Amino acid sequence: MHTSSFSPDSVQVLAFDIFGTVVDWHGSIAREVQDLYPHVDGDAFALAWRAGYKPAMQRVMSGELGWTLIDDLHRMILEGLLPQFGLAHLSEAERQHLNRVWHRLAAWPDSVAGLTRLKRKYTICSLSNGNIGLLTAMAKRAGLPWDCVLSAEVFRAYKPDPAVYLGVAKVFDLAPAQVMLVAAHHDDLEGARACGLRTAYIERPLEMGAAHPKDVSPQPGNDLHAADLNALADLLGC
Amino acid sequence: MHTSSFSPDSVQVLAFDIFGTVVDWHGSIAREVQDLYPHVDGDAFALAWRAGYKPAMQRVMSGELGWTLIDDLHRMILEGLLPQFGLAHLSEAERQHLNRVWHRLAAWPDSVAGLTRLKRKYTICSLSNGNIGLLTAMAKRAGLPWDCVLSAEVFRAYKPDPAVYLGVAKVFDLAPAQVMLVAAHHDDLEGARACGLRTAYIERPLEMGAAHPKDVSPQPGNDLHAADLNALADLLGC
Repeated sequence: MHTSSFSPDSVQVLAFDIFGTVVDWHGSIAREVQDLYPHVDGDAFALAWRAGYKPAMQRVMSGELGWTLIDDLHRMILEGLLPQFGLAHLSEAERQHLNRVWHRLAAWPDSVAGLTRLKRKYTICSLSNGNIGLLTAMAKRAGLPWDCVLSAEVFRAYKPDPAVYLGVAKVFDLAPAQVMLVAAHHDDLEGARACGLRTAYIERPLEMGAAHPKDVSPQPGNDLHAADLNALADLLGC
Repeated sequence: MHTSSFSPDSVQVLAFDIFGTVVDWHGSIAREVQDLYPHVDGDAFALAWRAGYKPAMQRVMSGELGWTLIDDLHRMILEGLLPQFGLAHLSEAERQHLNRVWHRLAAWPDSVAGLTRLKRKYTICSLSNGNIGLLTAMAKRAGLPWDCVLSAEVFRAYKPDPAVYLGVAKVFDLAPAQVMLVAAHHDDLEGARACGLRTAYIERPLEMGAAHPKDVSPQPGNDLHAADLNALADLLGC
């Protein structure tokens, strides 16, 4: 569905939010935690871990913490969660392995096929607050065919800081309107739009798990609204 | 040929120098210049452009110039060359197009096959002084299957600054000895070795053009010495 006048040929780069948009963080973490520690509520664990994410980044962006990669922020949050979920006994090696679950997130079923189609016409890159090492490991494992892995780490700022959105345009020597952010989160898309980028909303109704369906009704302002990445490829004529 | 005791399993990431190692800058530029401007000596033009590269980076690293991307350094050098080669009449659009020839460099004949083999066992990334936009455009056009595009731009320092070599290890949360630099230039490999990285020398005898063959005899200190990227894949058991 087109929600504004928009020409697919005006865009050269598609930049993708990752957690929730391209990969299923909730399902991947809930499953792995449940498998490793059957007495733990995987759904609650995944939600609690993710809930610590924005406050942790905020501590970095406010200057309370120096520049800190998401791998390290995930670990800080994890340390707080383990006692709450009866996992205070985990060894250092077990904690490291569990923290790396964010490197092992599974793609949504449409992601690889959709990205492969989109890549034929556009330069496709990640644009995630996740660090480069995390995004590279994830892409290699899940088969995400990025032309380029871009991360907040490159710009040393976390979305929705304008430096991240404008940074993509600058990397590719393009005007902001030649870059489109693809994301399942309206606040991310709003940040990009404020910088002059084009925006495409992707419905991910089960991002928070089957028990917590998300409102994915269209909101005004986005250039495109698509059910998934194959539907986005349809809209963009790929 | 193994030139030191070295176990392929001790390395996780292969980081590749690009200009001359993976792509043929001399041949690509000489051919394109000759096609566009038949009266110009393409061989001399390519050599002169490349000769300005290290001094330009040195001006950045010495602080004389602020941080400047290679696209912009190439353009500065080009402006000096055009009058010397009878091309002072070029329009702004023609200059921009010519400057982008660095985005259109052709891979050496073995590069795509060799990288594809190496990627099965290792994480493969670029590690070039070229900027991210340049490296991404080049990879997309030439089919270079990087897991990740790393550039001096990420570290805001040019090789052989230790920040670049150590930066790769840090991005992947590895010890320096778990990263191998693959390059056709001994000074680059020396810089990496001084930081604790493993090193593989690739022979590119015609890097400077058929008229200027390069000495590619083995030098002590490198872990591996290979004729090309397929030979490197053989040595690494890929």
